Amino acid sequence: MIGLVNSEDGPRVTHALPLPTVLAEATLRLSVGGVCATDLEIAKGYMGFRGVMGHEWVGVVEAAPDPSWIGRRVVGDINCPCGACATCRAGRPTHCPHRTVLGIAGRDGAFSERFTLPVANLHAVPDGVSDEAAVFVEPLAAALEILEQIHVRPSDRVVVLGTGRLGQLCARVLALTGAEVTGVGRDATRLGMLPRGVKRARPEELATSAADIVVDSTGAPEGLELATRLVRPRGTVVLKTTVHDPAPQLPTPWVIDEIHLVGSRCGPFDPALRLLASGAVDPTPLITGRYPLERADEALAAAARREHVKVLIAGM
Amino acid sequence: MIGLVNSEDGPRVTHALPLPTVLAEATLRLSVGGVCATDLEIAKGYMGFRGVMGHEWVGVVEAAPDPSWIGRRVVGDINCPCGACATCRAGRPTHCPHRTVLGIAGRDGAFSERFTLPVANLHAVPDGVSDEAAVFVEPLAAALEILEQIHVRPSDRVVVLGTGRLGQLCARVLALTGAEVTGVGRDATRLGMLPRGVKRARPEELATSAADIVVDSTGAPEGLELATRLVRPRGTVVLKTTVHDPAPQLPTPWVIDEIHLVGSRCGPFDPALRLLASGAVDPTPLITGRYPLERADEALAAAARREHVKVLIAGM
Repeated sequence: MIGLVNSEDGPRVTHALPLPTVLAEATLRLSVGGVCATDLEIAKGYMGFRGVMGHEWVGVVEAAPDPSWIGRRVVGDINCPCGACATCRAGRPTHCPHRTVLGIAGRDGAFSERFTLPVANLHAVPDGVSDEAAVFVEPLAAALEILEQIHVRPSDRVVVLGTGRLGQLCARVLALTGAEVTGVGRDATRLGMLPRGVKRARPEELATSAADIVVDSTGAPEGLELATRLVRPRGTVVLKTTVHDPAPQLPTPWVIDEIHLVGSRCGPFDPALRLLASGAVDPTPLITGRYPLERADEALAAAARREHVKVLIAGM
Repeated sequence: MIGLVNSEDGPRVTHALPLPTVLAEATLRLSVGGVCATDLEIAKGYMGFRGVMGHEWVGVVEAAPDPSWIGRRVVGDINCPCGACATCRAGRPTHCPHRTVLGIAGRDGAFSERFTLPVANLHAVPDGVSDEAAVFVEPLAAALEILEQIHVRPSDRVVVLGTGRLGQLCARVLALTGAEVTGVGRDATRLGMLPRGVKRARPEELATSAADIVVDSTGAPEGLELATRLVRPRGTVVLKTTVHDPAPQLPTPWVIDEIHLVGSRCGPFDPALRLLASGAVDPTPLITGRYPLERADEALAAAARREHVKVLIAGM
């Protein structure tokens, strides 16, 4: 079968992949995949991952230990915890030290015709949510993780750095709180993609020490330094950027200004599905490219270019 | 009059200081001063401060716009905010961008025979609290700031890195929550100074990713990296270290493990006075040296040596 493999020589579409067979897991057929900044970092060497790429997807269950799942349209949590260790039992399965992560660590990903995940990871997609919306569930959940971690008040001034894939979703979710949200970037087209009600600014237009909350979703090594400059004393910086070559940071301003920093990663799928089903968040205007699975390597290359926000990969 | 001045050539005892005169402020006579790690950093160039050093002190009011203060034994908040700007009006006066800080920024400090502070900064010392206990109010308040900022649960595992001046006080305050507190250092004498009920460990004896909360009060550039290694996923690292030459940090593990980092600086004086008055915290066993004001530069040099924890300076 066909799949996009991160090999020693970088991402390659391979035609001779063996069918995945893990009896305790569901076998999934890819409907639509989404290319994420993490995929681009993995192609550069982040996490040292080798194997089938991809962790944003919507698909159909072809086989499952519980047959009631068969034929259903699903998305799925990408972290596969052991379920037995102290971290799992403490209620933090997404941080299980023994976990595998779909297309990121120890487990082949979704950019292939068939792949597997534990049934416990699956979430049925409501009928009213299209495949092209459902493929955003994983990054939308990552944006919602901010609201799982910190209390955003309706009166807060929130700055979202980065108008790319994740920044756009963070701005949408944070604006739902009623807070004054400013999306920050340099690209006029991407600034124009921010939804109504979200203010737009270039980095140099922002006052220093004026934001209650700053989200660094730049995906760039210099994002955290800018966030530190923009946040007010005792404000909060949310760290969303993971890059292969992070920039070292000097901690002194965080101590003097008593800044809170919060690392933020994967989030809850069910609230993301609810917001897509209600229409409160519509991510589909962010789609700028579509490629068939056989040209998934081109999809990856396209996603790295500035004119693209979200590039999708269609299953076979 | 006599005072310890941080000059171009480093800290010097000066005999020809003019008397301070700020009519709207109280004039204070130093009873006892305490040397802090921040003083040692200032001597190295931290904050670029030039002038009379010292911000840990207990003294007597000699003159004040409100005469009811005259003759009273007092301690005082070291931050002098403008009281009028947006930050002050938002209830964060210790972060006022126009503030001066006693012996640290824009204002002569306490290591001189007389100095001044706004009356609003003063706190009367209860009769049952000795001068040698009261001089610890400022660093004890800084330790209490941790509990102002984060919720420490009785069931938490807390690690305090550093058994120096501030680490000792942090361990004492955190142990009052009922949490399992481990003080970490390399010096057997300082480990022995940790109070009953606080566990003691060397850094290499600690399990990685096992602490709910880690306080970096090492005062050393490498403390934050160790704290990052010891804290569990979604745990909290409290940043207490400010050094002239901080070590750059790579943010990636904070994102992946969703760590909370909280910069922590000055704290509330009234709770510190209450804990000294009740006897719940007794800092006086930490006193390892006493110098007269005329030899305040020797006090500073002594405080930099490993055999000393808290070095005091006696007023004239």
